[in-house]
Amino acid sequence: MPTQHRIERALQLGLQASRQTGHPPRLAAAMQHAVFPGGARIRPKLVLAVALACGEDDTELTDAVAAAIELLHCASLVHDDLPCFDDAATRRGLPSVQRAFGERLAVLAGDALIVAAFQCLALGTRRHLSRLPGLMQTVCQGVGMPMGIVAGQAWECEPQVALRDYQQAKTGALFAAATMAGAQAAGAEGLDWRALGEQMGQAYQVADDIRDVAFDAALLGKPVGQDLALGRPSMARELGLEGALAEFHRLIELTLAIVPVCPGAARFRQLIRLEADRLVPQKLMAERLAERLAAAA
Amino acid sequence: MPTQHRIERALQLGLQASRQTGHPPRLAAAMQHAVFPGGARIRPKLVLAVALACGEDDTELTDAVAAAIELLHCASLVHDDLPCFDDAATRRGLPSVQRAFGERLAVLAGDALIVAAFQCLALGTRRHLSRLPGLMQTVCQGVGMPMGIVAGQAWECEPQVALRDYQQAKTGALFAAATMAGAQAAGAEGLDWRALGEQMGQAYQVADDIRDVAFDAALLGKPVGQDLALGRPSMARELGLEGALAEFHRLIELTLAIVPVCPGAARFRQLIRLEADRLVPQKLMAERLAERLAAAA
Repeated sequence: MPTQHRIERALQLGLQASRQTGHPPRLAAAMQHAVFPGGARIRPKLVLAVALACGEDDTELTDAVAAAIELLHCASLVHDDLPCFDDAATRRGLPSVQRAFGERLAVLAGDALIVAAFQCLALGTRRHLSRLPGLMQTVCQGVGMPMGIVAGQAWECEPQVALRDYQQAKTGALFAAATMAGAQAAGAEGLDWRALGEQMGQAYQVADDIRDVAFDAALLGKPVGQDLALGRPSMARELGLEGALAEFHRLIELTLAIVPVCPGAARFRQLIRLEADRLVPQKLMAERLAERLAAAA
Repeated sequence: MPTQHRIERALQLGLQASRQTGHPPRLAAAMQHAVFPGGARIRPKLVLAVALACGEDDTELTDAVAAAIELLHCASLVHDDLPCFDDAATRRGLPSVQRAFGERLAVLAGDALIVAAFQCLALGTRRHLSRLPGLMQTVCQGVGMPMGIVAGQAWECEPQVALRDYQQAKTGALFAAATMAGAQAAGAEGLDWRALGEQMGQAYQVADDIRDVAFDAALLGKPVGQDLALGRPSMARELGLEGALAEFHRLIELTLAIVPVCPGAARFRQLIRLEADRLVPQKLMAERLAERLAAAA
């Protein structure tokens, strides 16, 4: 079954409980809106790619882990879009959950998605129970305190913060959880895949900064220029577009260099290269740089 | 070790990860503020009481389960107090988390507490891994969709709702999770304890309604008259104080009547009676009723 189809099916399954008899219908609709249609599904794709590279032996388990990671990502987006944070009107080209369903249901949808993620893990491991505690530890570390994505978001509320620590927690943590959990889903050692996940998270964060300055809103599916508008730290502002592009490619090369020894390493490296060009298309970037040079001349 | 001490120690342990190196300090402080000092700790006490009644064989596991349930309860209070819901200024006699730390950290503290709860379950079950999936299912049902406390809160955002369904989800669900998880922590069958937990949740909800109209703010540790002010359904408004008291005692008697056969049933019944009188002190209620009769005469 194609990767994309596996992920969407696992996510539908993950939200199944929210549509069982007796549920409040607007909350179920808000959860559905938060998860479908998705963005690039980059984290669950990473889970599947790592599990495959490690010699996956239980696709149902891999899919459940991928869904759990994506549900947690969706939960964080819903809460990040709240009026007290970004007050985002749109997300993935549609109204954000808080705009479509109101602030209260956005808070609750985020909460319910976190719970649904853990439910996925519990159900998905029924044939490999011994993998559940490690997977839970990985996921909790990627999301919670002291250095998961919730902690990353909290650094925005602190008077002082180092850019790299902030980005590591805000983005790198869930990428690391995705690669580690992918390995663990296949019965492999999660820790071997941690550095790679962190590296990819950094690369993705730089890509996000680049896209925020170099893409237009239609291409991005959300408002552009948000980092500048909200005074958030940004590599593209710090280093300029050219510097940020160089940093992105350096991080991708580093990522490729540390792929652990595993049965599917070559194919995995190929996937990383494809994903890098999808995130930051070389052709488009060359055009943008040329435009800037022309404007500056 | 006395019950209260076990619970506080388990909660401290449950928040330990949030204070590890690298954490954002204000989020850690907000989480601490959300959990300490506690209220009556009625749900974790219930976990311990049921586990003991069922012949507890791993106190570390029971304590971890009790902490998980209480952390989830605290998370729900922090989110319920947000400006978009109750906008509560105080909680347990102190500023609410949103007032003390701001709305953003209140959202994140709630999220991080949910994650911490699942981390407790994963760590607590290391000697009895086979109990983890059942415990997770119980906890997810008590908190998430379709009928956990998050769903209960979401019914406040629906145009139509039946009072009993709303209260069952909003309060009963976590009580049922507490009794079921208490049994499961001891290796017993959780389902046998579900009806009792739901019944106790109903009794507690009626007690809460009674306290909202019959207690003053100092005694309650939070603003009184909130149900009326916020237009929330309330048994004490629906039936009057006398009617609500009768309903409360009826529910407690029902609860006592359905205690499952277990080694510690007699002691468990005694604990329920003590807790009922702590929640709704008979002497104080007699005084309040006499005052109302005198005022009406």
